[in-house]
Amino acid sequence: MILENYQIDSHNSELLAKHQRRLAFIADEVSDAEAIIQKLIAFQIGIPSWALGTGGTRFGRFSSGGEPRNIEEKIEDIGLLHKLNAASGAISLHIPWDTADDVQAVKALVAQHGLSFDAMNSNTFQDQAGQVHSYKFGSLQHVSKAVRKQAIDHNIEVIRQGVELGSKALTVWLADGSCFPGQLNFRKAFQHTLESLQEIYAALPADWKVFVEYKAFEPNFYSTTVGDWGQSLLYASKLGPKAYTLVDLGHHLPNANIEQIVSLLLMEGKLGGFHFNDSKYGDDDLTAGSLKPYQLFLIFNELVEGMDARNMKHHSDLGWMIDASHNVKDPLEDLLQSVEAIMLAYAQALSVDRKALLEAQETNDVARAQEILQQAFRTDLRPLVAEARLRAGAALAPLELFRKIKVREELIKSRGLKTVATGL
Amino acid sequence: MILENYQIDSHNSELLAKHQRRLAFIADEVSDAEAIIQKLIAFQIGIPSWALGTGGTRFGRFSSGGEPRNIEEKIEDIGLLHKLNAASGAISLHIPWDTADDVQAVKALVAQHGLSFDAMNSNTFQDQAGQVHSYKFGSLQHVSKAVRKQAIDHNIEVIRQGVELGSKALTVWLADGSCFPGQLNFRKAFQHTLESLQEIYAALPADWKVFVEYKAFEPNFYSTTVGDWGQSLLYASKLGPKAYTLVDLGHHLPNANIEQIVSLLLMEGKLGGFHFNDSKYGDDDLTAGSLKPYQLFLIFNELVEGMDARNMKHHSDLGWMIDASHNVKDPLEDLLQSVEAIMLAYAQALSVDRKALLEAQETNDVARAQEILQQAFRTDLRPLVAEARLRAGAALAPLELFRKIKVREELIKSRGLKTVATGL
Amino acid sequence: MILENYQIDSHNSELLAKHQRRLAFIADEVSDAEAIIQKLIAFQIGIPSWALGTGGTRFGRFSSGGEPRNIEEKIEDIGLLHKLNAASGAISLHIPWDTADDVQAVKALVAQHGLSFDAMNSNTFQDQAGQVHSYKFGSLQHVSKAVRKQAIDHNIEVIRQGVELGSKALTVWLADGSCFPGQLNFRKAFQHTLESLQEIYAALPADWKVFVEYKAFEPNFYSTTVGDWGQSLLYASKLGPKAYTLVDLGHHLPNANIEQIVSLLLMEGKLGGFHFNDSKYGDDDLTAGSLKPYQLFLIFNELVEGMDARNMKHHSDLGWMIDASHNVKDPLEDLLQSVEAIMLAYAQALSVDRKALLEAQETNDVARAQEILQQAFRTDLRPLVAEARLRAGAALAPLELFRKIKVREELIKSRGLKTVATGL
Amino acid sequence: MILENYQIDSHNSELLAKHQRRLAFIADEVSDAEAIIQKLIAFQIGIPSWALGTGGTRFGRFSSGGEPRNIEEKIEDIGLLHKLNAASGAISLHIPWDTADDVQAVKALVAQHGLSFDAMNSNTFQDQAGQVHSYKFGSLQHVSKAVRKQAIDHNIEVIRQGVELGSKALTVWLADGSCFPGQLNFRKAFQHTLESLQEIYAALPADWKVFVEYKAFEPNFYSTTVGDWGQSLLYASKLGPKAYTLVDLGHHLPNANIEQIVSLLLMEGKLGGFHFNDSKYGDDDLTAGSLKPYQLFLIFNELVEGMDARNMKHHSDLGWMIDASHNVKDPLEDLLQSVEAIMLAYAQALSVDRKALLEAQETNDVARAQEILQQAFRTDLRPLVAEARLRAGAALAPLELFRKIKVREELIKSRGLKTVATGL
Repeated sequence: MILENYQIDSHNSELLAKHQRRLAFIADEVSDAEAIIQKLIAFQIGIPSWALGTGGTRFGRFSSGGEPRNIEEKIEDIGLLHKLNAASGAISLHIPWDTADDVQAVKALVAQHGLSFDAMNSNTFQDQAGQVHSYKFGSLQHVSKAVRKQAIDHNIEVIRQGVELGSKALTVWLADGSCFPGQLNFRKAFQHTLESLQEIYAALPADWKVFVEYKAFEPNFYSTTVGDWGQSLLYASKLGPKAYTLVDLGHHLPNANIEQIVSLLLMEGKLGGFHFNDSKYGDDDLTAGSLKPYQLFLIFNELVEGMDARNMKHHSDLGWMIDASHNVKDPLEDLLQSVEAIMLAYAQALSVDRKALLEAQETNDVARAQEILQQAFRTDLRPLVAEARLRAGAALAPLELFRKIKVREELIKSRGLKTVATGL
Repeated sequence: MILENYQIDSHNSELLAKHQRRLAFIADEVSDAEAIIQKLIAFQIGIPSWALGTGGTRFGRFSSGGEPRNIEEKIEDIGLLHKLNAASGAISLHIPWDTADDVQAVKALVAQHGLSFDAMNSNTFQDQAGQVHSYKFGSLQHVSKAVRKQAIDHNIEVIRQGVELGSKALTVWLADGSCFPGQLNFRKAFQHTLESLQEIYAALPADWKVFVEYKAFEPNFYSTTVGDWGQSLLYASKLGPKAYTLVDLGHHLPNANIEQIVSLLLMEGKLGGFHFNDSKYGDDDLTAGSLKPYQLFLIFNELVEGMDARNMKHHSDLGWMIDASHNVKDPLEDLLQSVEAIMLAYAQALSVDRKALLEAQETNDVARAQEILQQAFRTDLRPLVAEARLRAGAALAPLELFRKIKVREELIKSRGLKTVATGL
Repeated sequence: MILENYQIDSHNSELLAKHQRRLAFIADEVSDAEAIIQKLIAFQIGIPSWALGTGGTRFGRFSSGGEPRNIEEKIEDIGLLHKLNAASGAISLHIPWDTADDVQAVKALVAQHGLSFDAMNSNTFQDQAGQVHSYKFGSLQHVSKAVRKQAIDHNIEVIRQGVELGSKALTVWLADGSCFPGQLNFRKAFQHTLESLQEIYAALPADWKVFVEYKAFEPNFYSTTVGDWGQSLLYASKLGPKAYTLVDLGHHLPNANIEQIVSLLLMEGKLGGFHFNDSKYGDDDLTAGSLKPYQLFLIFNELVEGMDARNMKHHSDLGWMIDASHNVKDPLEDLLQSVEAIMLAYAQALSVDRKALLEAQETNDVARAQEILQQAFRTDLRPLVAEARLRAGAALAPLELFRKIKVREELIKSRGLKTVATGL
Repeated sequence: MILENYQIDSHNSELLAKHQRRLAFIADEVSDAEAIIQKLIAFQIGIPSWALGTGGTRFGRFSSGGEPRNIEEKIEDIGLLHKLNAASGAISLHIPWDTADDVQAVKALVAQHGLSFDAMNSNTFQDQAGQVHSYKFGSLQHVSKAVRKQAIDHNIEVIRQGVELGSKALTVWLADGSCFPGQLNFRKAFQHTLESLQEIYAALPADWKVFVEYKAFEPNFYSTTVGDWGQSLLYASKLGPKAYTLVDLGHHLPNANIEQIVSLLLMEGKLGGFHFNDSKYGDDDLTAGSLKPYQLFLIFNELVEGMDARNMKHHSDLGWMIDASHNVKDPLEDLLQSVEAIMLAYAQALSVDRKALLEAQETNDVARAQEILQQAFRTDLRPLVAEARLRAGAALAPLELFRKIKVREELIKSRGLKTVATGL
């Protein structure tokens, strides 16, 4: 389904007066509104190809219809999102689910929608039909060299496909671990994983990065071989300068201070990217900002401060991706909500009075430091995010427009009610 | 596959001398060995029909082959387990997965294996093919009366099937809840659920019980409508004397004191039964006793004490069931390990010096109380469990015999490598 | 220290123009601004007498100076807070720390500051000098009747003092529980506690309430005898209509859904009151709203909806108290921040479009329900809270004024640097 | 109080026959009983000087009487423990609480009791009387160089005292962190802490180690500057070869897999030592093995395997210390129980069939691996621990003897009922 410019224009013109009133108000409240808007315009979030269909749990899955049936339709969906919010300008592919038959056609389609390719994702947590060795007992960690080799080769193949497409990074998320005490020798599992990663690392082009994603638990329920940021950093450090840690917000033990982890990884020059989502219990993969918006703001607060301290470019030096599961909402609506929450948290972090905060910290003025952060968070910066969209030619209220033009109904009409997108 | 008596006898005779030496030793150490053995013989654990195949997570499933393809083969598998350990004498069915076409034949088969029917389980957490209404947004809690009606009718149908088979209880586990703030009005969801349960309760035969199972989270990740023991007790109290709470060990928030919950439910006369498993992070559904064996013992310690205080019969006044998922082990081996761990914990609890413990409690002698419990737990009571098996005609070392006679290989030969048992 | 009206006026007149601009803007954004302001004016939060000094942990305590040395100075401090924000109009006393020698003088002082007496708090978690029996092994749960009697008598004495002062409620927080398995018989501990509470209940005047506070852990680290809302509700139900559950936000296991608990307690007519604070790990007793402001909003969202459904008065039918520990901030500044966060969350909850939310819920429109709640939370309603203060004669920016007139410096000057307030 | 040899002999001779029967039985069950006994004899656990008195929480402390009033009495108490169990042969001092006035006399006393000095502990989490700068906002992390300097100097002074006494290690546990978002710049806090540690490191004698202890939370409740093993390892790696990580079992987020952390630290050559205790909710500081004995065994399982793989000596290459708080038990009884649990876990780990386990792991035989570990854990190895004590001249049943000869009564008689040991 194609969203036409006139539809956006018509939508925007209806909302414009109200928007301008709000923008005028907030521009007066915030000292650097224009600078924030510019940064928001430049900021782009990668959409995972596997999150365009309805997600589920081991207990079941309730489809919503109109799901994309192939990579072309996935690109089309992300193109639509990007047209709506001008902030979803990248696609993160998952191999083998998204292997392109006609690479040139896929590249052209992506370009046509104004998108780029974010990190490529390999899959060694499932057995594919026809696969020689099973990953039941792990992939890169496996006690058998043959299984490890198969998993290494798969990752190298993913790099190859990524190179063809124009991606610049590989994300390795490993389900590897164990379900019971005694199942694994932890050190050997680590060493095997490291050696396997080293072989994959060796296959990286000069301008590529590899992101080593960690996760505390699930699908293994006793140990995970890349289980926390400490382990991921250990791998990344041993691998070399192209290896980085990837932080997924849902991959921690209860109560973890994720913003501190982010800060330390930035300090070490080893933060590679993000998988945004929200959660209450585990890797719940809920909409970004839907449960702990203040935490999301605090994470961005560390990112803005730490990246500035390292002279990093906000819009391109880290990989910013969503990784969520849409079990009870329309996946596209859910993604629009996630992007909105991320942009808002970014805007809030950009508006923090850094000079005052530094002063408060230097004088141990804890109450004042809290006031400064809360001032940024409590101020309603949504007009700045909307203005960034407006200037980029997108919709003032993407979700509203999405519903008004009946996107889902159209997709069901054209694709059918019983489609199932590849992915989780 | 049928296990012959001579195979058990031959196995036992090889191990007998060693067993008798151990039994003689422990009989001298424990004051009431014979009484414990008698209670162990009487004790039976229900095996869930859905746990006979390989389990999985939302990320995938790695089959192990030879899985039962229908209810008859499931009964056969449990019959084999029971033959091996004489402690798996009940089967817990899941409808619609296990609906019997020929009820009389199924009853005969169950009788032939010396089994009985434990609680029946309904399923309103998935949509079945051809179902009119979807449970995407809940079943008994649903805002629509029509959906609730469908779910109520299903539960009544499960009771009907259970009556035919000779079961005496219905377990209602509800996935109902919400994934996001605002999705549900908690009170209305509770009221709808209560009213739905009342209709189901009204359909219970006089000698039946209904177990209201609670779970903290998953598959819903914000709220669950029967989310903890407090909520379950509220439903059970409002429903009436045939309604009880069912405790699944994996369904709690981190660090919950489950043994205290068990004790209080017994105090209130509202403990209905158990789903045994073990876990580290959430509802991990691991082998009972594989991670926290001391907790399992402490739970049995409360059960023995509390049931005795209420003059309840250990072997029949509660529903004792396993509810685990076998993702990386042979399901039948895993079940043998679970039953062994449960029997051992029960034996340990039976061996606690209750008089001394009471004295220690009455004098606030905390160190002594700890010594008394640790004495029971650290003493190796496995010979008593083995002796109970021996006297009941089962194997001294069930898992060893299972492997020796190559059960899994035989099952794969007869059923095939690619079978998938219905269930999770 | 007395804050003069002219100081407030001078402060307000400086900020007035900016405030009016913001108020005008937001009044245009929110449909019922005036109604919200009226409810905010009526809403009062109780300040605990024990939170006026610096708090600490078992590892130490770092004083900040100028702490109140007696009940009169505590009232003076709360009077100052109330003068600043017109929302701290009640004091919650802790006996024996705050036993008044001259009851009439204390009542007069409280009246003079425009305050009232919130719930009285008993203390059976510490041994006081000269106490006959020790609470080392519990108080109301104790195996010895004599110890229980002493604890019961203390609670009755607290009621007596409360009656004299004009309080209408008793909060019973029990540290009772156990540190090791075996230490307690859970059922007997429950029964003893219940019987003790029944004796206290019998001593309640007709127009009094008793709040049974629950807590998951600390200072006992294995079990707590009033450990969760389920247990508290059980006590409250068995006690009778004057008994209610009190919810302290920090007293739960990790990841608990507190807003659902609040909703269910309201449904049962058994929610008695609140102890506000915030936390990341346990009973951290941090400033309300400092870590999880969205959770605070969601709790108020349930309160507003549930109280309206029961025709309860927001400002008086529940006990609203802060219970925090000020370890690194000036206690008075911290309390100003807590009150501000609570008022803001209340304002946000009042601004939720209930009709639209109900519609979204009735149609399972999850994305829309989320939008509605986020709309209320993301809108900057601080001008409404400020306006409520302004109309009530208090300061537009209480913390700013507090600092400007150098309250702490004055208190240190008059009271000294090394004072230690009674309390934790 | 001095325990005489004849008292031990008399105690042992009463229990000897029963012990020998049990030993004979178990020696027949375990393949390498003698080797295990020898290792148990060599194994020594450090007792912290601060754990000899009753502990408490921020809510209070209930003394038990007879507590040691000075370093000499602390040494005497540990000497008594060591006489009873021959496994408590080291003392871990805490400065300034235990600063020795007469170093030679203290050394002589320690030697007389057959003890040695374990790691020295510094204290920068409290302000001492007369201290120039406060640690309210941290010590080694502090924004002020002067405060950091004071804390550095204190640590160097602790080393100096340790050198005089003959200790070989410094344990640095830092409470440094923050209670609220914004309070700290995480990177600066890390850098300050690192620089401070570097100055301390520079003052270490050639044969000394420094242990960098981590802790997830408490007394700071938002962030901790050495918060997890990843951070500790980062410090230790940057510091150099004499710096190691110290693992306290209670210092983790909920559900952490501590045994995996232990394994990885051993792999990196950076595991320095242990603080043993047990916990259910946080840093509960309960008796070792009192809640999760299987976890304790699994940790020792990794230690034995990992140390063997690195050719480390079990009895001396790591620091083994208890760090517990005795709130409701007699501290000396509690320590006897902790030592017993640790020795038992060590014996169980030594008895694991490593060859079989390796085979099971190499063939992904998960059920078998579990059986092997459970075989070691379920076997009752207490007779081996008792035999080790017997051969070393200590008591077969230390706690029994402790009670029989009325140690506590004697200590109260000689020291008084109202003593308070320095410490927590």
